[in-house]
Amino acid sequence: MFEFNITAKNKRARTGTFTTPHGVLQTPIFAPVGTQAAVKALTPAQLKDLGGTLVLSNTYHLYLRPGDDLVAEMGGLHRFMRWPQPILTDSGGFQVFSLSNTREVDDKGVTFKSHIDGSEHRFTPERAIRIQENLGADIIMAFDECADPNDLEYIKKAMDRTHRWAERCLKAKRRADQALFAIIQGGIDPDLRAASAEFIASLDTPGIAIGGLSVGETKDQMHAMLDVVTPILPENKPRYLMGVGTPEDIIDGIARGIDIFDCVLPTRLARHHSAFSPDGRLNMANATFARDERRIDESCDCYTCQNFTRAYIRHLINAKELLAGTLLSIHNLRALIRLVEEIRGYIKEGTFEDQIPGLMERWANNAQRKSEEIETQRTN
Amino acid sequence: MFEFNITAKNKRARTGTFTTPHGVLQTPIFAPVGTQAAVKALTPAQLKDLGGTLVLSNTYHLYLRPGDDLVAEMGGLHRFMRWPQPILTDSGGFQVFSLSNTREVDDKGVTFKSHIDGSEHRFTPERAIRIQENLGADIIMAFDECADPNDLEYIKKAMDRTHRWAERCLKAKRRADQALFAIIQGGIDPDLRAASAEFIASLDTPGIAIGGLSVGETKDQMHAMLDVVTPILPENKPRYLMGVGTPEDIIDGIARGIDIFDCVLPTRLARHHSAFSPDGRLNMANATFARDERRIDESCDCYTCQNFTRAYIRHLINAKELLAGTLLSIHNLRALIRLVEEIRGYIKEGTFEDQIPGLMERWANNAQRKSEEIETQRTN
Repeated sequence: MFEFNITAKNKRARTGTFTTPHGVLQTPIFAPVGTQAAVKALTPAQLKDLGGTLVLSNTYHLYLRPGDDLVAEMGGLHRFMRWPQPILTDSGGFQVFSLSNTREVDDKGVTFKSHIDGSEHRFTPERAIRIQENLGADIIMAFDECADPNDLEYIKKAMDRTHRWAERCLKAKRRADQALFAIIQGGIDPDLRAASAEFIASLDTPGIAIGGLSVGETKDQMHAMLDVVTPILPENKPRYLMGVGTPEDIIDGIARGIDIFDCVLPTRLARHHSAFSPDGRLNMANATFARDERRIDESCDCYTCQNFTRAYIRHLINAKELLAGTLLSIHNLRALIRLVEEIRGYIKEGTFEDQIPGLMERWANNAQRKSEEIETQRTN
Repeated sequence: MFEFNITAKNKRARTGTFTTPHGVLQTPIFAPVGTQAAVKALTPAQLKDLGGTLVLSNTYHLYLRPGDDLVAEMGGLHRFMRWPQPILTDSGGFQVFSLSNTREVDDKGVTFKSHIDGSEHRFTPERAIRIQENLGADIIMAFDECADPNDLEYIKKAMDRTHRWAERCLKAKRRADQALFAIIQGGIDPDLRAASAEFIASLDTPGIAIGGLSVGETKDQMHAMLDVVTPILPENKPRYLMGVGTPEDIIDGIARGIDIFDCVLPTRLARHHSAFSPDGRLNMANATFARDERRIDESCDCYTCQNFTRAYIRHLINAKELLAGTLLSIHNLRALIRLVEEIRGYIKEGTFEDQIPGLMERWANNAQRKSEEIETQRTN
């Protein structure tokens, strides 16, 4: 059911198709984030229109609200949120460690308090799988422990626990129509990353996720970790770099053999009035745009750029109209989806390596990773 | 250019066509409100999809932000907000009297302070026309003075001033591609209303507006005023009842010979989580909807009702997702637009009079006019 076929290769970069019960994904792919069973400020019709296919939803959030049992009763996530294309859920691991207030970790699982109402909850690997089975996504994640990247001893401990939890998730999994990906951890230590990649690659899963990056390390550290990990991984499984990233990160990641990306950046930037553009990231609230009749990106094919001037979008922001967030979300998501579409074309032509410098230059000013952005990157 | 043709009559109710430079309007018509050059939380594509044709925008708001000169520079309102169908602007009169902080009225005009930054401004009839010419709507309004409905002496004075201002607006008007409607005032006094209707009907305008209703009077008082006014008006001009209203008000108004309505109610209710339905107005935040798999209105053809359950919409509200406001705005606007479409059908068949009791019963529980709603009704 979950067949992955590589269709072209350019050094480590590759294009492929990943077949799921809700459609065939073209990789490399960028997945918009619909944390609470909705991509913020967009209807499914708008999301489809801008080329969205795979959507990520967050298990931690949906478990707390509206509850995975309710989603199951409503026919599962696809039917509930009216997204007939593939959905991926994370395991809740990252959010339990980044969002919830108090937590106690032991080998069996994690006890935490809801960030919404302080109520106490417990996730175990088995429970994380059961919740994700209730949600019913096409791609689900093993429960993992995310460690502080600066505490080597803890990273080792968390990595070992993540490996044991991955085995337990595999054992707990029941639904044949869901692909369980196990997650590589190991912080920014090359030896631990290599060990984790080897262990996770040895498991019988249809895909592999790389976690614990994009959580505060530098770009160089992320690249170094990808350079350690991807050569260890089998060619015939899709590789998902969790919570990444900026346009620059996506170009870098694809060059290092990554197939799947997700990030809240496009929609979160939109709510903060920022737009990706070939002139760099634009703050559309700026008064310099008040009478600017150009589109955000004159070369963009999104609904926003096909219709609205910078002046109009700046007016909407200034007048506090919600439509601003919608129009900017459409543009920013389309920008990243177009980027991966463009890169898929280059890989198929065999020219991706040659295109990287040009792509990097074009997207350079969109790529700053401000610390406050990274911190909330996967929590939306 | 602005031809009005009556196509069917049912006692005082009538259907017609009103030709404007941006298309032919089918009357009776309900106009969604786009106060700041945007119908709140909706794209023009969504608005078109739900059957929106005529859109109202507010001169007072656009004059203050982004400025009518800027809109003119950007090619006018149609181009700025990407609405290729007819647009109506009010004159700013109502908002100057209801929204701005301090004001001084004299026979020449009104001095007021911006509700945004307290800056001082002055509107005269000539200035209101000039601003509306900059905005470039198809239908524009004469500058009027709205009086407290309980102060008979002031009402008389304001009415006289409104009449003189209407004459000055007619004289000031320069663009042939805009239809200037003059506004009947006169509070809730039958004699003053009749006098105002006679005066305004005597002016050479392609349409007539009825102002100063839906500002705090009872339904009976509004009906009484319409019963005084519409028999005085010429048959061959469209009649626009400003800022009205609820489904019940629309049914009542059409029965009394009104052709054009506008109201912020559908979009404002949406932002407060309320939905029109055959079961009455629903508070979609209510926990009773948590597992309700029905549509808001099983008989509705809008995007929201064609796709989403009450349970999903309730979840979006509970999770504070902006998408809730968009989906509810789509439904509420479509509900009123469907209502007038349905009524146009009855008038053409000659059955409208017979249908009124059934329509009233169906919409009864959607029709409460809460005072706080009325107060902000035309200010969005």
